[in-house]
Amino acid sequence: MKLAIDRMSLLRPLGHVQSVVERRNTIPILANVVLRAEDGQLSLTATDMDMDITTEVGCAVATAGTTTMSAHMLYDIVRKLPDGSEVELSVGDGHAMISAGRSSFRLPTLPVEDFPAISSNELPTNFVLTAADFRDLIDATKFAISTEETRYYLNGIYLHKSDAGDLCAVATDGHRLAMTKQTLPGGAAQMPSIILPRKAVGELRKLLDDYDGDVTISMSETRAEFAFGAVRLTTKLIDGTFPDYTRVIPTNNDKIMQVDVGAFSAAVDRVSTISSEKSKSVKIGLRAGVMTLSASNTDASSATEELEVSYSGNEMEIGFNARYLLDIASQVNSEMVEFALADQGSPTLVRTPGDDASLFVLMPMRV
Amino acid sequence: MKLAIDRMSLLRPLGHVQSVVERRNTIPILANVVLRAEDGQLSLTATDMDMDITTEVGCAVATAGTTTMSAHMLYDIVRKLPDGSEVELSVGDGHAMISAGRSSFRLPTLPVEDFPAISSNELPTNFVLTAADFRDLIDATKFAISTEETRYYLNGIYLHKSDAGDLCAVATDGHRLAMTKQTLPGGAAQMPSIILPRKAVGELRKLLDDYDGDVTISMSETRAEFAFGAVRLTTKLIDGTFPDYTRVIPTNNDKIMQVDVGAFSAAVDRVSTISSEKSKSVKIGLRAGVMTLSASNTDASSATEELEVSYSGNEMEIGFNARYLLDIASQVNSEMVEFALADQGSPTLVRTPGDDASLFVLMPMRV
Repeated sequence: MKLAIDRMSLLRPLGHVQSVVERRNTIPILANVVLRAEDGQLSLTATDMDMDITTEVGCAVATAGTTTMSAHMLYDIVRKLPDGSEVELSVGDGHAMISAGRSSFRLPTLPVEDFPAISSNELPTNFVLTAADFRDLIDATKFAISTEETRYYLNGIYLHKSDAGDLCAVATDGHRLAMTKQTLPGGAAQMPSIILPRKAVGELRKLLDDYDGDVTISMSETRAEFAFGAVRLTTKLIDGTFPDYTRVIPTNNDKIMQVDVGAFSAAVDRVSTISSEKSKSVKIGLRAGVMTLSASNTDASSATEELEVSYSGNEMEIGFNARYLLDIASQVNSEMVEFALADQGSPTLVRTPGDDASLFVLMPMRV
Repeated sequence: MKLAIDRMSLLRPLGHVQSVVERRNTIPILANVVLRAEDGQLSLTATDMDMDITTEVGCAVATAGTTTMSAHMLYDIVRKLPDGSEVELSVGDGHAMISAGRSSFRLPTLPVEDFPAISSNELPTNFVLTAADFRDLIDATKFAISTEETRYYLNGIYLHKSDAGDLCAVATDGHRLAMTKQTLPGGAAQMPSIILPRKAVGELRKLLDDYDGDVTISMSETRAEFAFGAVRLTTKLIDGTFPDYTRVIPTNNDKIMQVDVGAFSAAVDRVSTISSEKSKSVKIGLRAGVMTLSASNTDASSATEELEVSYSGNEMEIGFNARYLLDIASQVNSEMVEFALADQGSPTLVRTPGDDASLFVLMPMRV
């Protein structure tokens, strides 16, 4: 194998695939990226055994061939080469030479036969989303994904067809829930309900950052594939049952409060300065037209702040985790945010006024 | 005590003093800042028992008084208040109220009598440096300060009058040494040789970042004080003997090599990608006009790069820690850097051609 490629053309795809490779690997080959050169194309593949990313880029192939070498090392080398340099890559017996200008690097290689096979069986469901729509699905829910490993079935985004026939994404950690829906795309009518793992969500979101075309999504009950541009990411799915989240979404919360989201965020952030690092709780007191945010700590410090709100329900008090309030506020793409409350022990519904596609549910804290 | 001050006027001095307060304190009062209001001035003082910072700012004092409260908490509150707000601070029985607009905060206070006394005895030596000159002294040496706690006498910058009568700053960690000198300012002729602790160096450097006037430096054998603008920082000095560094500076190194510092840094950074994380060693090979940088690792990976240099000595090879080379290169304010070498086992002198004020000494590594 022997090829030449300019640094920038190699750096981008290498950056995409190396990101999936874990920093510490007990199995040496999992630290490697597979390079395959033929017909003027270099394809790159990396995996962490749960997820793999393949991408390709045009290059001048002098001799076709395949090898594997350290993904992070190759990425660091290419990253540090001067902008505009032409990189030559050639593979000898058990090692590869990477050279550019007056620099040359020798990296040990491992045979591609040792690399875990990437599953490529047919996936029955196929549909297309625009990158922008897919980013919206992720952004509206990702922050609520649980990190508790014991509740592994919450460690991802639940993507499914809702009873109403929408494409629906949900994430929850038991304290808060985020849900968003879009029109079901053609081809998704028979889609399985899947739980897309947190790491795959993170990688996809990064990859979609600089992409603006269509994303082809294929899935079975156990595996999903996302293809866009030259990138193909496939991932195992979480093998578990996502709880029936619809029962958590309150439908009869009749105390409606609207507040300017910027002012609300800033006030929650200020008042929670006082909250204990552990609970981070803030109390919201409501009376006609006024919200009183307050927090206190065991050292006798306390904080209060008043905000003008649109509210005409009964006086009430309810406590929340300040971090959860700030997370939700950061997802609201509007000037106002709306809270629909029942009482201080019941889940609260949060949404953007006029946006029926997304909602958030927050469990209150005792304060 | 009762006063009013606009947020920005309070935030800056609070930022200056809170930085010295340790995040974790076993003695509660050490987490506090002393506030003293009288005659239209608010003075702020914080300490970590080794160092203290005092500063003051004009404000509207309604009732003079003194108190102490959590420095970090007060700083966070003021930082989060809206830009342009007017902050009111009033002290009651065992607590302070901080309010601005519709926010109000209550913080517990501790009596100022419990705060450790700040030493204020006369310091015999007094002289003045411009902030720019003092920054230069720090920047040219700070990076070489040792972090090894057992060699506590190396944990600072050695500031003294050299035999030649210059004001001289030196730092070393035993592997490398940085020295810079300036004309001795008036009043410093009888200055004691002091070791200024790493933390005080760091705080001073931060404070000097946005100051451009004169710095009045006062010192005894055990304490130093730095006064500039409204800020006064005093620190205990390291009670130890700085080694006779002049014996380490080679005087007969006759192999002179000059190289473009940008190209050299980039090449060292690239080649050291391959070096083991622990040793980070790179080898420099020299022959007429050419430097060959190389590195290798136990996994059979290796790197080499050639650079054009000005060199006409004998062929030689010498190894260095790549991080130390990069640290030094980042301090060179010129296009070229000059190495004066003896042999692969002896200290190497590094300097900016034409700059006689500063020099660096690097111990080689066996490679």
